[in-house]
Amino acid sequence: MHRAAGWVLRGVRNPPKTRSRSGTARSPPRGLVYGQHGEPSAVVQLKDLEEAKLGGSDVHVKMLAAPINPADINVIQGTYPILSPLPAVGGNEGVGEVLEVGQHVVALKPGDWVIPASTGLGTWRTRGVFPEEMLLKVPRDIPVLCAATLSVNPCTAFRMLSDFESLAPGDSIIQNAANSGVGQAVIQIAKASGIKTINVVRDRPDLPKLVETLMALGADHVITEEMLRKPEMKDLFKSIPKPRLALNCVGGKSTTEMLRHLQPKGTMVTYGGMAKQPVMVPVSAFIFRDVRLRGFWMTQWRKDHAQDPAALTSMMDSLCQLIRRGQLTAPACTEVPLQDYQAALEAAMKPFISSKQILLL
Amino acid sequence: MHRAAGWVLRGVRNPPKTRSRSGTARSPPRGLVYGQHGEPSAVVQLKDLEEAKLGGSDVHVKMLAAPINPADINVIQGTYPILSPLPAVGGNEGVGEVLEVGQHVVALKPGDWVIPASTGLGTWRTRGVFPEEMLLKVPRDIPVLCAATLSVNPCTAFRMLSDFESLAPGDSIIQNAANSGVGQAVIQIAKASGIKTINVVRDRPDLPKLVETLMALGADHVITEEMLRKPEMKDLFKSIPKPRLALNCVGGKSTTEMLRHLQPKGTMVTYGGMAKQPVMVPVSAFIFRDVRLRGFWMTQWRKDHAQDPAALTSMMDSLCQLIRRGQLTAPACTEVPLQDYQAALEAAMKPFISSKQILLL
Repeated sequence: MHRAAGWVLRGVRNPPKTRSRSGTARSPPRGLVYGQHGEPSAVVQLKDLEEAKLGGSDVHVKMLAAPINPADINVIQGTYPILSPLPAVGGNEGVGEVLEVGQHVVALKPGDWVIPASTGLGTWRTRGVFPEEMLLKVPRDIPVLCAATLSVNPCTAFRMLSDFESLAPGDSIIQNAANSGVGQAVIQIAKASGIKTINVVRDRPDLPKLVETLMALGADHVITEEMLRKPEMKDLFKSIPKPRLALNCVGGKSTTEMLRHLQPKGTMVTYGGMAKQPVMVPVSAFIFRDVRLRGFWMTQWRKDHAQDPAALTSMMDSLCQLIRRGQLTAPACTEVPLQDYQAALEAAMKPFISSKQILLL
Repeated sequence: MHRAAGWVLRGVRNPPKTRSRSGTARSPPRGLVYGQHGEPSAVVQLKDLEEAKLGGSDVHVKMLAAPINPADINVIQGTYPILSPLPAVGGNEGVGEVLEVGQHVVALKPGDWVIPASTGLGTWRTRGVFPEEMLLKVPRDIPVLCAATLSVNPCTAFRMLSDFESLAPGDSIIQNAANSGVGQAVIQIAKASGIKTINVVRDRPDLPKLVETLMALGADHVITEEMLRKPEMKDLFKSIPKPRLALNCVGGKSTTEMLRHLQPKGTMVTYGGMAKQPVMVPVSAFIFRDVRLRGFWMTQWRKDHAQDPAALTSMMDSLCQLIRRGQLTAPACTEVPLQDYQAALEAAMKPFISSKQILLL
């Protein structure tokens, strides 16, 4: 009885305050907690969490699955610009099922699936109580791995394809780090819209397999960083127009080379910097080709659109429709039981990992 | 009689075709001609030019004054992206007085002052015949040196202050190369609009004098590149807001440092690259501060607005009004007789020259 103490029992004692799907006692929630910033393998531990009290505007969620994203690692290392107060539960993305809702909650009910509406939720846990406004309902008829990986990468891809250039079928875009989670979503969303993609990846031992994977997703061209620099690139542009949009997740040389192929007055959007090098642009590209350089951060977009829920709903509807039609799939995933989190964290930090680690909760 | 042969005499023989202010015979036009690309001192020569025939849509112009701009040097060197067919007369800016107009010309008459409507006119000459559409009328009540230097630098400054951020009185902008022709125009146009300017210049022996000059033009702050890097910069931002617009004519370190002080979601416009180094931007500035990088080239603006003459007229009206009110003056000029062009070309290419060379024609 001791381990099952807390708000669940109190919830049972106060049925009018909460609507619970199940009144049975549960084991306490567990989560991946870090008490200080540092290397994830050193600072993250699986711990029992306190049962939180369900307030009137709160929602009790049983988490189902949550990915380990690169940004999650940076948050734990303390190098991300937004950090949670310590100790904190890791993870910013995932999907859960609503168990109970507070008396003032009307938009969610037990059984609904929810994903984080913003960053910092701490998704690497079995259960949690969250304010309603931190959650976003998603349909239950999409695969759980799609739902678990919906709120960051596909949203980032969707917005970058929508918000910077008005692209029409037949137009092309170019992106580096094309096999990243965002990159794969870009390929699929662009394909569904009739937009051609030129996808730049780093050379690697299993390159043909990667090319095949990306082509199967709908990529029109997959090239290596080295090919990007070669004069043969002009042959490629005999069959498709020069891109009006470039998506940059690398920095350094890769970015400069990619920029050379952008149409005049085209836009390059930087959303990551895997090479840990600055973006370098010849002055002439600005003056004589009028290229436009922007940045994108999904977290900022959510903040900027906090008062415009329709924008978020409309995007989610579009993405879920693509998922149902089979036009948008989850990235290649490795599903890992929660207790094997150490292996998952290590795998997530290895270079050339094309498979996303997903914690099963 | 031989030297006075050509269209002037033909003009006199065919008075119905042209309206001439003066029918007297003239010495042939002379101009600074280059037959090949190379260092100006080696390839530019003062030569007699052929009298051109005045077509129905042409305008015969007596040039009054024309500056030597950095871009003119690059055109002669062959390093500019738009080059004239060779042999060519140098110079892209200046003011002239209309002597005669062809029978179809209605918007100009003898006595009018004109400036180039686009680049490539070849303004370093005593007289010339140009198609009407290559000329733009300017009022005669502004100083000749203002008119001669109106079509490039003040227009560039005006557009950069208007087209990228909507600035209100009290807002601030930051610019490097602040003592350039554009820089001085930026200071004055911003001052007239109540916009504060932070002006970055290179350290130099006569720095106090330069600071005094720029402050007299209306600069709010003048700082060196070195000061830009110091923590004391934050004291400056106690009295004025962080800039929403940065104007970059340098590249390299100067640009990166300037960018650090830009407001989130602010815009940096690159219009020159004096340091001959690329623009370098940390990836984080794009992602977490949402800075926007653009370029500006007056030549491209003119092309883009070729079908929108009202935009050009409106800008010219605004600039001439500022000139009449004494709020926009010509940059510091050294007036040089045409025959001393070698000295003028050499002076125009020296570093740290704050005075613009103006050829008197």
